[in-house]
Amino acid sequence: MTRMRLFAFDFQGPAHLSAGLWRHQDDQGGRYTSLRYWTDYAQLLERGRFDGIFFADNVGYHDVYQGSVAAALADGAQVPANDPFLVVSAMASVTTHLGFGLTASTSYEHPYALARRFSTLDHLTEGRVGWNLVTSYADSAARNLGNGHQVPHDERYDVAAEHLEVCYKLWEGSWQDDAVVRDGHRYADPARVHDIGHRGRYFTVPGLALCEASPQRTPVLFQAGGSSKGQALAAAHAEAIFTNAVSIPALAGQVRKVRGLAAEAGRDPGSVKVLQMLSVVCAPTDEVAHARYESYRRLVAYAGAMARYSGWTGLDMSQFDPDVPFAHVRTNAGQTMVDLFSRMDPDKQWTPRDIAEFIGIGGTGPTLVGSPSTVADELIHWMTETGIDGFNLGHAVKYRDIADFVELVVPELQRRGVVWSEYEGPTLREKLYGPGTVRLRGDHPGSRFTRTSVSAW
Amino acid sequence: MTRMRLFAFDFQGPAHLSAGLWRHQDDQGGRYTSLRYWTDYAQLLERGRFDGIFFADNVGYHDVYQGSVAAALADGAQVPANDPFLVVSAMASVTTHLGFGLTASTSYEHPYALARRFSTLDHLTEGRVGWNLVTSYADSAARNLGNGHQVPHDERYDVAAEHLEVCYKLWEGSWQDDAVVRDGHRYADPARVHDIGHRGRYFTVPGLALCEASPQRTPVLFQAGGSSKGQALAAAHAEAIFTNAVSIPALAGQVRKVRGLAAEAGRDPGSVKVLQMLSVVCAPTDEVAHARYESYRRLVAYAGAMARYSGWTGLDMSQFDPDVPFAHVRTNAGQTMVDLFSRMDPDKQWTPRDIAEFIGIGGTGPTLVGSPSTVADELIHWMTETGIDGFNLGHAVKYRDIADFVELVVPELQRRGVVWSEYEGPTLREKLYGPGTVRLRGDHPGSRFTRTSVSAW
Repeated sequence: MTRMRLFAFDFQGPAHLSAGLWRHQDDQGGRYTSLRYWTDYAQLLERGRFDGIFFADNVGYHDVYQGSVAAALADGAQVPANDPFLVVSAMASVTTHLGFGLTASTSYEHPYALARRFSTLDHLTEGRVGWNLVTSYADSAARNLGNGHQVPHDERYDVAAEHLEVCYKLWEGSWQDDAVVRDGHRYADPARVHDIGHRGRYFTVPGLALCEASPQRTPVLFQAGGSSKGQALAAAHAEAIFTNAVSIPALAGQVRKVRGLAAEAGRDPGSVKVLQMLSVVCAPTDEVAHARYESYRRLVAYAGAMARYSGWTGLDMSQFDPDVPFAHVRTNAGQTMVDLFSRMDPDKQWTPRDIAEFIGIGGTGPTLVGSPSTVADELIHWMTETGIDGFNLGHAVKYRDIADFVELVVPELQRRGVVWSEYEGPTLREKLYGPGTVRLRGDHPGSRFTRTSVSAW
Repeated sequence: MTRMRLFAFDFQGPAHLSAGLWRHQDDQGGRYTSLRYWTDYAQLLERGRFDGIFFADNVGYHDVYQGSVAAALADGAQVPANDPFLVVSAMASVTTHLGFGLTASTSYEHPYALARRFSTLDHLTEGRVGWNLVTSYADSAARNLGNGHQVPHDERYDVAAEHLEVCYKLWEGSWQDDAVVRDGHRYADPARVHDIGHRGRYFTVPGLALCEASPQRTPVLFQAGGSSKGQALAAAHAEAIFTNAVSIPALAGQVRKVRGLAAEAGRDPGSVKVLQMLSVVCAPTDEVAHARYESYRRLVAYAGAMARYSGWTGLDMSQFDPDVPFAHVRTNAGQTMVDLFSRMDPDKQWTPRDIAEFIGIGGTGPTLVGSPSTVADELIHWMTETGIDGFNLGHAVKYRDIADFVELVVPELQRRGVVWSEYEGPTLREKLYGPGTVRLRGDHPGSRFTRTSVSAW
């Protein structure tokens, strides 16, 4: 088994995936506007030797349920949502190894500006940033940021592929490693800084990058696409993918599929790391953990869960009776989440309420409940049975669940030798591929744009 | 005389306005990618009781001189340029009062995304951010971020005015102050969060803001426009303007003009604070200060100065002999900077080299050289003769010049009672208008969009 990678999954708002849990007495979500909250959290994660923290993001909001944003607002369901890029430098300033994964959309960010943001953060964090590339699904984002309607799903992926190409050219090909000379006459040698000359279908970027080469150049690339177009993009470009499978067999199948696609795309299948979304409720004993989980379950808010689920699927769940099983419905999103639940337990006829109770704690990933030993057993079982590389840990109760994990589960995992006790390699890419691999691997499509010290393309 | 406001003027790159000075042995510009550099700097400024730091920005680069970016790259002349927004949270986390002014362009940032960035930072800094609104002048920015050519100058200001209106609606009118209730059932009361319904000529933003109301709501608005369209925008919207006059009479005239325009726009003329750009080279004695200034002067790089000047004016200065006076030339930028220099000293025929030597230290603002007492005398003289409110302090040598100012000049100004010894009011707006004025004043055009607790527009 490979070393278990651990990321925390979070959101710059009062609540992320769990519905109604912000009302728990231990929940710290109400402090999301406080810098101190985030710097404390960063230090907690570094004490637990986490590889990084991932910030989801949503430039739209959930307004499908009941045709209104009301249920989402009432549950703080991913709205309000602050910009996650802006908290990173504070969290980086109190840590030395923790990585930062940031979600950004290729549909609403211009590559020239976005490439600069990532380069800036990669400089300031000394190589600790990653990009979770999304194409955005919410109509509300298109209405407020675009021209009133979304680009069709498949074309969004064509835009994403060209967006990535522009970014690679800026990150890998504009500033040579030896461009900054500081030789007493010149800060940079102009002959070593190159215009990228990009003229494509969606973007025209003829000039040079505004930022000199950062430690990692290209940030570590993450992807979570579930559609066939999304899987193809992930197989070609992602260095790690997020999964949210509901069962071990389903996850094992996803892992085989994405690594097969990566091989077809000419990459080493082992280059694609897989991180499964999963939540943990841990206490010193199984009994106390289950009691705690029950206290969480009682707080799950049906409308808050359905506001999210309707937003993700594009299907207004208010049209269904909460307690009547409903047939498999193909939604207007790429993924059929109703099918997903039914696959998990083919003999069960899922009702909307079943779904709400399931996703209300930690979203669509599973939740493990138990003592440190029980949780460690299960985490290891998930890894060995599926070939994944680690976990993207959600939470029910903000801060508290992750603090319990750091205090209780991490020491148990360290005793078993499946997580590290000390960091090796400060950059985020080294956390995936080992010390020394700071830049894109040679099998990655972005690497063909790399100019180290000579003109190469 | 009003309290002297002090801001540091800086840039997220190895060099800002001064040309060639990055080569000085004391210069710290080479550390611009280091978080520690910026957090140390923030603490230095807070020890000096500065009101804030201002980050200029440039999403293009200077490629007018010799038709190439080469001279700019060789001098690090505002290129490379990291994104200033991303360092703020780290600097804010080690300070409690220092304000942060950020330059952002209404031509290349969508108001929905930009409003969110400012709201996020206003939350994280607890009300310490300001926006230096620019419309961007560089063709290189248009080529790399836009559709190949710039929007005409006057229309850029029409775009800016509508952009601001969208931002006001998002900041002031979407989330009521009492929208977040956390009453055990609801995080926010949906009836207190409003769609802004903006449908204009350049932007369509029908929905609600992604962020709840931040301490200041609208960040403090700064402007520096020199053209008539720019002055009109500043008079209507700016809470403070930046000037870079080269002489006291010229500055006094500018102050009268902008306050007159503000009064015509229905505002209290005193609502428009004026901050003059100016650099200081200070040492314990006049003699040592002048020797230090001479050591700076010898390092000024002609091509680096001309790369900047040509970029600002749009006039390729390489076509002129450096040592032959040249006639007044109207440039393709809004401001005629050649005229500006000639007005400063009507009897002098300026050569390109004269201009390079002048702007090579601290840009187009004047540079004061002397002992703490001499510098304090001159700063007070500039204020009393012109009616300005303070200074935006540039530098020749990064960190060192401002550190000298904090160590030598600030105590002298404190002894004279013209700057404060302790902060009053933590937000940036309170630093302009006094404790308690956290939100836009009633005479500001943005205030008509404010919803505190009832629907008002």
